[in-house]
Amino acid sequence: MRCDVLAVGTELLLGQIVDSNSAWMGEQLAAHGIDSLVQVKVGDNVGRITAMLRRMIAESDAVIVCGGLGPTHDDLTREAIAAVMGVELVVDEGVADAIRELFASRGRRMPENNLRQALVPTGAAVIAQTRGTAPGLICPVSVDGVDKVVFAVPGVPHEMFDMFERGILPELKRRSGDASVISSRTLLTWGESESGLNERLDDVIAELELAGSPTLAFLASGWNGLKVRLTAKAATLDDCNSLLDVWDARVRSELGHLVFGSDGESMESVVLDLLRSKGWSLGLAESVTGGLVGARITGVPGSSEVFRGSIVSYASEVKRSVLGVSDGPVVTESAAIEMARGARRVLGSDVALALTGVAGPAEQDGMPPGTLCVALVWPDGELSRTLRLPGLREQMRQFSVISSLDLLRRTIG
Amino acid sequence: MRCDVLAVGTELLLGQIVDSNSAWMGEQLAAHGIDSLVQVKVGDNVGRITAMLRRMIAESDAVIVCGGLGPTHDDLTREAIAAVMGVELVVDEGVADAIRELFASRGRRMPENNLRQALVPTGAAVIAQTRGTAPGLICPVSVDGVDKVVFAVPGVPHEMFDMFERGILPELKRRSGDASVISSRTLLTWGESESGLNERLDDVIAELELAGSPTLAFLASGWNGLKVRLTAKAATLDDCNSLLDVWDARVRSELGHLVFGSDGESMESVVLDLLRSKGWSLGLAESVTGGLVGARITGVPGSSEVFRGSIVSYASEVKRSVLGVSDGPVVTESAAIEMARGARRVLGSDVALALTGVAGPAEQDGMPPGTLCVALVWPDGELSRTLRLPGLREQMRQFSVISSLDLLRRTIG
Repeated sequence: MRCDVLAVGTELLLGQIVDSNSAWMGEQLAAHGIDSLVQVKVGDNVGRITAMLRRMIAESDAVIVCGGLGPTHDDLTREAIAAVMGVELVVDEGVADAIRELFASRGRRMPENNLRQALVPTGAAVIAQTRGTAPGLICPVSVDGVDKVVFAVPGVPHEMFDMFERGILPELKRRSGDASVISSRTLLTWGESESGLNERLDDVIAELELAGSPTLAFLASGWNGLKVRLTAKAATLDDCNSLLDVWDARVRSELGHLVFGSDGESMESVVLDLLRSKGWSLGLAESVTGGLVGARITGVPGSSEVFRGSIVSYASEVKRSVLGVSDGPVVTESAAIEMARGARRVLGSDVALALTGVAGPAEQDGMPPGTLCVALVWPDGELSRTLRLPGLREQMRQFSVISSLDLLRRTIG
Repeated sequence: MRCDVLAVGTELLLGQIVDSNSAWMGEQLAAHGIDSLVQVKVGDNVGRITAMLRRMIAESDAVIVCGGLGPTHDDLTREAIAAVMGVELVVDEGVADAIRELFASRGRRMPENNLRQALVPTGAAVIAQTRGTAPGLICPVSVDGVDKVVFAVPGVPHEMFDMFERGILPELKRRSGDASVISSRTLLTWGESESGLNERLDDVIAELELAGSPTLAFLASGWNGLKVRLTAKAATLDDCNSLLDVWDARVRSELGHLVFGSDGESMESVVLDLLRSKGWSLGLAESVTGGLVGARITGVPGSSEVFRGSIVSYASEVKRSVLGVSDGPVVTESAAIEMARGARRVLGSDVALALTGVAGPAEQDGMPPGTLCVALVWPDGELSRTLRLPGLREQMRQFSVISSLDLLRRTIG
């Protein structure tokens, strides 16, 4: 089964928007065993959309057209598909009513051109909208006597995601005769490189290659961690989940403490959950990161139950006057420990984490850029570490955030 | 002149990487008056690359092929271009020497397959590498007796940017007979919507449309501000700059204090420069933003000359114990003023900025999500404001950062 993608919109060619929709669809299609071999961008020109679509559907089993379904005169996807099908556009009264109701429910007058969105090529089926006004379309096309299909979806990502899963994927699976189900699970790791993870999982990967399912892939995600994704294909969702349970446990047992979470979690949510479970509050003393750790922590709704605050002591005098750090160099483990003790005292927290380091470009206190001293003080003890982190200023700061939160997780977890 | 783009790489179709290169090239081409009407992604398959390239060059004056120039067996762009040109690949000794020298200068052994990157179709010119190993290619192609050109550049963005400007653009301009120069300038604004800016610039836009150059475009960039870009086309760079000077001044006079900076600046760099020019240091008291303002400020190298630190007082008790905020609700202007006074005292800064608000999802102190109370204390006075910001949790926090820094800029500037 092959399904190519045609993204429509002059703004895509002009670089005003990057077409990330086709990449997303390519990833989904691949996960479901469907090839996507050609992905094209064209502008809002009905002649070019029509010619390109005609050529693409001749070479593929299916084509998804993304964008060009809006209400204005330069939204031309409907016209192009009708031309390729060789049929007329007719008003779908159900869709028209839904659009009228949507405007009425918001107490707004409906501009008449919105009814353009109710036009449907004769013979096409509608993928109902649940979030906007433009419906999706499922359009059967016969090419030299072969039954093929053209889909149309809006270019607004969250509308497209929804219609892809609800309308396109089931139709593609029906057409391919593939009744299997695909499900994936992502394990989040920190503390080892991609090649290092690969080495630790050598045996698992060899066994998975023999078994065929699930597949395993690595996905580097910066300061969100390095992801290990298992994707299982089986007859039912229950079968998928059983497979995923087995291999999830296997991967965790190989990687041990490197795994810090899974789908829907993040390093900061895991750390907050851990502290909440112990009934401990958190305080921070930040220098090199300037507030980035607190910003990440407070990005999680409900963090106020655990997080008390942060003393961002960027100037050395603030480290001394507010946190009580002794005279002398400030990029050292002993300064980090004093910062953590000071933050715990000033903020009244049970646990305190402190970071001091050199983001660059210049060195400081004789320490090169990339140096991070991190300290942790908690009800049962204290510790400090010096790390050498890669990257220029911003990457070094981001890696400081996840590395120090990971130290907290592994120490008190 | 028309120049289409062919991005090569299976990882693009699988969604492992989003193809942002073609969007960047589309933007550059448009700025130079060159149409890009079709942009395509194909995988690492020599038959498909060749067929697609043959079709694309038949319909366009030029095609840029991006990616597939690496040293491994699945880097097939060179082979595809040679097939379309109907010529052989031959080793370019100059390129081969440059690759050998690059490895030698890094003290590394050169794997033999790197010499694949020295293969050049007969008749093609080389765009020398300055950053990596794979050179770019300029390949003349005759289609039905018409002279056309195929370019090849690496998919690594910074290598591609460099070769595009140095090798591709001059060749396209030579071929189009266009000797003009294009230059642009970006003004950064905050405090008005895109439609609001449009309205204020109605007369300017009408005059620019008559004049033809420069052109004016708006570019929404989240918490980096709303950009107004002027792009001038003229015989020389000096002429461009004269035009840009005139219209830059005109736009600034219409928009007044809404303009906070231009190319190479950011809200935080502008605020830091302003404080530095006055000899004033900065302290912060953050609540709703959790450290985000300090993180932005300290992202600017050299910020330590001005920035002393931040008291991230997320818990109400910390607002009271560290900053001296009175009992009572904490999302109010009077609490914000007390936070700013407290930060100024504790951090020993000349200026202090304080933010307290509700990011949501729940309301707090009877205030709805989106409420921001901001206060500023500086050597000449104090002020506070209540703002209603749009967006969900993270967007509200980001808008809080730029809006409060903008208040500081406009107050002390």
